[in-house]
Amino acid sequence: MSAPCAVGLLGGGVIGGGWAARFLLGGTDVRLYDPDPEAERKLGEMLELARSALGRLSAVPLPPEGTLSFVPTPAAAAEGVELVQESAPERLELKQALLAEACVAAGPDVLIASSTSGLRPTALAAEMGRPERFLVAHPFNPVYLLPLVELCGGARTAPEVIERARVLYGSLGMAPLVVRKEIDGFVADRMLEALWREALWLVNDGVATAAEVDDAIRLGAGLRWSFMGTFLTYRIAGGEAGMRHFMAQFGPALKWPWTKLTDVPDLTDELIDEIVAQSDEQAEGRSVRELEQLRDDCLVSVLQALRAHDIGAGAVLARHEAELADGVSAPVMRDDDDLSRPLALHGTEVAPDWVDYNGHAHESRYLQVFGDTSDALFAYLGIDRAYLMTGSYFTVETHLSHLLEALLGDRLSVTTQVLDWDERRLHVFHSLWREDDDALLATAEQLYLHVDTAARRAAPAATTVLERVRRIAEAHASLPRPERAGRSIAISH
Amino acid sequence: MSAPCAVGLLGGGVIGGGWAARFLLGGTDVRLYDPDPEAERKLGEMLELARSALGRLSAVPLPPEGTLSFVPTPAAAAEGVELVQESAPERLELKQALLAEACVAAGPDVLIASSTSGLRPTALAAEMGRPERFLVAHPFNPVYLLPLVELCGGARTAPEVIERARVLYGSLGMAPLVVRKEIDGFVADRMLEALWREALWLVNDGVATAAEVDDAIRLGAGLRWSFMGTFLTYRIAGGEAGMRHFMAQFGPALKWPWTKLTDVPDLTDELIDEIVAQSDEQAEGRSVRELEQLRDDCLVSVLQALRAHDIGAGAVLARHEAELADGVSAPVMRDDDDLSRPLALHGTEVAPDWVDYNGHAHESRYLQVFGDTSDALFAYLGIDRAYLMTGSYFTVETHLSHLLEALLGDRLSVTTQVLDWDERRLHVFHSLWREDDDALLATAEQLYLHVDTAARRAAPAATTVLERVRRIAEAHASLPRPERAGRSIAISH
Repeated sequence: MSAPCAVGLLGGGVIGGGWAARFLLGGTDVRLYDPDPEAERKLGEMLELARSALGRLSAVPLPPEGTLSFVPTPAAAAEGVELVQESAPERLELKQALLAEACVAAGPDVLIASSTSGLRPTALAAEMGRPERFLVAHPFNPVYLLPLVELCGGARTAPEVIERARVLYGSLGMAPLVVRKEIDGFVADRMLEALWREALWLVNDGVATAAEVDDAIRLGAGLRWSFMGTFLTYRIAGGEAGMRHFMAQFGPALKWPWTKLTDVPDLTDELIDEIVAQSDEQAEGRSVRELEQLRDDCLVSVLQALRAHDIGAGAVLARHEAELADGVSAPVMRDDDDLSRPLALHGTEVAPDWVDYNGHAHESRYLQVFGDTSDALFAYLGIDRAYLMTGSYFTVETHLSHLLEALLGDRLSVTTQVLDWDERRLHVFHSLWREDDDALLATAEQLYLHVDTAARRAAPAATTVLERVRRIAEAHASLPRPERAGRSIAISH
Repeated sequence: MSAPCAVGLLGGGVIGGGWAARFLLGGTDVRLYDPDPEAERKLGEMLELARSALGRLSAVPLPPEGTLSFVPTPAAAAEGVELVQESAPERLELKQALLAEACVAAGPDVLIASSTSGLRPTALAAEMGRPERFLVAHPFNPVYLLPLVELCGGARTAPEVIERARVLYGSLGMAPLVVRKEIDGFVADRMLEALWREALWLVNDGVATAAEVDDAIRLGAGLRWSFMGTFLTYRIAGGEAGMRHFMAQFGPALKWPWTKLTDVPDLTDELIDEIVAQSDEQAEGRSVRELEQLRDDCLVSVLQALRAHDIGAGAVLARHEAELADGVSAPVMRDDDDLSRPLALHGTEVAPDWVDYNGHAHESRYLQVFGDTSDALFAYLGIDRAYLMTGSYFTVETHLSHLLEALLGDRLSVTTQVLDWDERRLHVFHSLWREDDDALLATAEQLYLHVDTAARRAAPAATTVLERVRRIAEAHASLPRPERAGRSIAISH
C-alpha cells in the first residue's frame, strides 16, 4: 500500500509536528489544526530538520512532498482525509473534546488516532461518535526518524481498524507494534517510565547527576538497546547455557533492592517456561555464538557511527584511538629497512558493510583501502600529527583497475611501488592482493601533490620527507615497471 | 598512562572472559583462575570474537597482545600483577572467599576489584585484609567493546584507590563512572533492573511477548539511548521551553500507574530546580535546536549502521527503501527525454563522516558518489532488481581527477557523458559539480563490463539496455569530448 493522500493533524508541537514531517515527506497532504500562533514557524523549523535528516538517510529518492495547510478548527482538519491524528497535551478532557469535534466532521471510514503516551483508548473514546474506528497510535520523538508506533485499541475499537492502521503506518516506513491488552502506558512507555522514575530517584538521592545517569545508559546498555532489547541481550548474557541459565542466575536478584521497583512477578516455573519458549522463538535457531557475533558486528558499526559525531561512546573511542596513535603510531622508515621490494604497509579485511548489490566490495571500498595505504605510506615518510599542521599530500589523480572480485571476509594486503617524484609530487603504484592465494585483485596508480595546509596550495615537502622519498624511489627504480602503470581508458574496437 | 603490564582475573565466564579479552588485546598479560574445565575453550572463542571486532573497529593498530596464563588458584592469579579483578557468580559468600584468598597473595599496592552487578563493596570487603585497596569496577557485556565501567568504593575504600582505578581503566579505552554513594545496583543496573522488572510484568501479564518487548525498545527509545540518555532526551522533548517545561508537562504522569514502579520521588521545587540546573549544565549552552540537529545526525548514522546488518530499525528502513524503490524507483529513460546534454542523474551532500584529517571529503567518498551515479545510470538504462538476477555492469577501470576540495555540507551534482560502447562494454565520463557556484570539483572516467551474474563472466547486455545505450551515445557523440578524458598519470619533469 502507498502512503495516504491526506491526513488531518490536531496539534503541531513536538509530536504533532513530527507527524506532519513524516507525512509530508512521505508524500501525504496534511491539514493541521494548532491554536499556537507560533505553530507555523515551529513546524517550518522541524520540517527543515526532517528534510535534512531524511535526505541523508537514504539513497532512494523521497516522493514529492505533500501539501501543508493550516486550518482553523479541529473539524476542518478532518475534512477529506483518511486519518485524523491527535497529538495534544496529555490532558484527558482536552483530548476527548478535540477528538469528539473532529469525529463529527470526519467521514464514516476515516481512522481516528491519538498519539497519547499512556492514556487508555477506552477513556479517550468516551465522548466520541463511532468509537469503533478509534485507536491509540503512539509514536516516538523524532517521529520522522524513529520507526516504532504502538497501536492499542479500546473496548469498542473494531479489529479491522487495527489492521487498517497497521497497513497505513507501515506504508510510512514505520514499524507498528500491536499491544495485546489495553493498559496504561502501553509497552514502551511502561519501560521508559520505569527507567525515568528510577533515574529521578538517583538524582533525588544524590547518587548521580543527570549527566552521569545519561552516561550510565549511553556508554553501556544503551548501545545494545539500539538493535537488541533486554530479552535477547540477557539470552546472550546467559552464555552457552542460554535463557534458562540466565533466569536461574539472576532470578534471585529480583528479590534484592537493586531498584525502587521491588514489586516483582513471581518467577514461577510456568513464567520461566513461557519466557524461555518466547526467547527460543525470538532467537530463530541462532546459537548464542551467532548472536554474539551479530551483537558485536552491530556494536562495531554503531560505535563507528558515533565516532563520526564525536559523541558518547564514539567520543571515548576517538580519544582512545588518539592515545594509541600517539603511543604506538604507524612505523616510520628506518635506516636499515629493506627497500629492495615494494613496500608492504597495509592490510585489512572485507567487512559486511563493504558489500554492495553485486555481492562484492563496492568500488569506493577499494579506494578506501588504497587511501589507507597512502596514509600508511605518509606515516612511513615521517608525516605525523605535528607535520600535518603545516603540510600534507593530497591525491590529485587515481587510476583504478579491477581484476578480480573482493568478497566478504577476504583478507587483503597492499604493496606499494614508488614510480616517480619531485619536491611537490609523488607518483606511486599500489597492488591489492588477496592473502589466501596471493591473487592480484586490483591496482591503483596515484599522483599526490604536497600542499601547504594553511594556504591550501602546492608547496614543497619537508627535506626529511623528501630524503626518505628519494631513498625509496632509488631502490624501487630497479624493480620492473608495473604492467598496468600509465594506462588510459579506451574500448578497443 | 599506558595499560597495566599484568592483571589477575578470578573467573573467566561471560564477564571475566570479556575482561581477559579487553586486557590481552590492550597489551596486558593476564593470569586467569577459573575452575571450569571448559574455561580455556570458552575463552578462546571469546578472544576470537574480540579480535575480529576490535580489528574492524579501529584503523589504529592495536598493541601486541598480552600473554595469557591459566593458573590453578586465586592466590596464583594475584602474583606479580597490578590489579586483581573478580568476576564470579553473584553469590556474596563465594565472592568474599575468592577475594580474601587473592588478597593474601597480592602485594600491598595491588588494586582489588569486583565486577559485581549490584552487591555492595562494603559487604564484599568484609572478610578481606587491607580493604582500603578494594572497590567495585562493574563493566558491561561485551566487556571488550562497551566502554562503561562503574567504580564504587565501600566504607573503607581509600579515595586514592578510586583515582588509581579511574586512570587504570581509562588506559584501556574505558569510560569510568564514579558512583557518588554506595548503593545496591549502583547507577546503570538500577535502571536496567527497573526496565527488566517492568518487562517481566509485561510478559507475565500477557501484554507483550519477549520479542515485542525488545522491539518496543530497539525500534524507538533504544536508538536514542545509544548516544543520549534519558535526561538529555527529555530536555529535547520539552521543545523550545526545555527541561522545566518537560517536567511540568509530564510531572503529573509520575503519579499515574504507567509502570508497576509507583513509589516515586516528590517533584518538589528543590528537586525540579536541581534537575533543571543539572540539565542546563549537561546541555553546555547548546540550544534545543542544536541538540535536535545533533540527535538527528546521530540517528541517521545509527540507522545507516543498522541497515548494513539488516537488523531492528535498520531492517525496517531497508524494507521501506525497497518499497520506495519499487514504487517510485529511479527514472528509466523515456522516448521523449532530452539527450542533447550530459545526463544529470544524481546529487547528494558532503556528510560529516566523509570528512578526513585533511578537512575535506576522503577520496573514497568521491568514488562513492560516482558509483551512486553509475547506479542511477544503470537504472536509467532499465536495469532493475529483476534484471540484476541475471546481469549487471561491473566497473573494471576508473580514472579520477581531483580539481577542487569538496567540503562538509557542499551540495554536489554529477553529470554523465557516454563516450563509447559495445555490447559488453560501456565507457562514460562523470563530472562532479558544486551546486552553489557550478565549480567542477572532480571527474571520473569509467569503463564498465557487462557480466552474467550467475556465471560471473562477461556477457552481452540485454538488447533493451543496449538500445538505450545506443541512443544516448549517438546523441552524446556531438558533445565536445571532455578535456580530461583519456588521461594517464605521469609527472612531467
